[in-house]
Amino acid sequence: MTEPEPRWLSDEEQRMWRASLGVLNLLPLFLERDLQQQHNLSVHDYEILVRLSEAPERRIRLTELAGLSHQSKSRLSHQMNRMENAGLVVRESCDSDRRGQWAVLTEAGWDRLVKAAPDHVESVRRHYMDLFTEEQKKVVGEAFATIVEHLRNADGGQTCPSQGCPGAETKPGPK
Amino acid sequence: MTEPEPRWLSDEEQRMWRASLGVLNLLPLFLERDLQQQHNLSVHDYEILVRLSEAPERRIRLTELAGLSHQSKSRLSHQMNRMENAGLVVRESCDSDRRGQWAVLTEAGWDRLVKAAPDHVESVRRHYMDLFTEEQKKVVGEAFATIVEHLRNADGGQTCPSQGCPGAETKPGPK
Repeated sequence: MTEPEPRWLSDEEQRMWRASLGVLNLLPLFLERDLQQQHNLSVHDYEILVRLSEAPERRIRLTELAGLSHQSKSRLSHQMNRMENAGLVVRESCDSDRRGQWAVLTEAGWDRLVKAAPDHVESVRRHYMDLFTEEQKKVVGEAFATIVEHLRNADGGQTCPSQGCPGAETKPGPK
Repeated sequence: MTEPEPRWLSDEEQRMWRASLGVLNLLPLFLERDLQQQHNLSVHDYEILVRLSEAPERRIRLTELAGLSHQSKSRLSHQMNRMENAGLVVRESCDSDRRGQWAVLTEAGWDRLVKAAPDHVESVRRHYMDLFTEEQKKVVGEAFATIVEHLRNADGGQTCPSQGCPGAETKPGPK
């Protein structure tokens, strides 16, 4: 009897939420399809190549990479196996560092990213970015920055480290 | 030499895209975590319960359900096994209908949805909806409706059927 009435979404909020779910569900499928067809890479592969390309000496600790790519260590480990077999990365351990293994971008991995990046940015533009007006880009950018900030802090930063969330459609490489 | 220069994202677009990726990557994790912890349901389970609750006689053909939930038939089949074992749905075939099996919502499935819906809408509000201003909701709703429309048409409607994309945070049940 004392349960508060649930705060159901209004009709307008409901439409906005369904559109958001549509983007959440569909956009990754299109980006994935394009990357797979054009470059035989998954979106997760691409994100990891970008992350490594931007890191000092093109290397990142696996524990850190798991956080950056929002993956469990075991799932990342499977992905690393695939990427290592494909020659895109190597894993290295450092005797003087007990904090475990590093993922290191190979020359082949770098070349693959450089080749894929122009097509991927075109895919991002075609299915997402170019469909916004300039004003919409601005509003969505601000609103989503607030939400990402909230989500990062919601778990004391455990889910997503403060370095930022994955994906880069600038020219690959160190800034 | 004749390759056009890739249309890299501007700094502002880059920030907007990274924020979008942050939401795309993180928001589903939070919704999933809340649903699992509170009701032992996955987001996909929830979406299917919602779809069935809204359908005539609370039943949908499996082939149609695969499209509505953006899943391959084999993945949906695994999910149906789980949900049937949990008593949430049953699968029925109809002798006079060669178009295959139906998924049917059980009373237990209905009860589970009714119980989960108030918490799920609260989760959607906490991690997403309530973080927007009214103006931002309007702009995001309009912009994303355009994008979903584009994505639905991009494959001749194969990826996402015209009935709409999943998810409902209105009160469960027929409209």
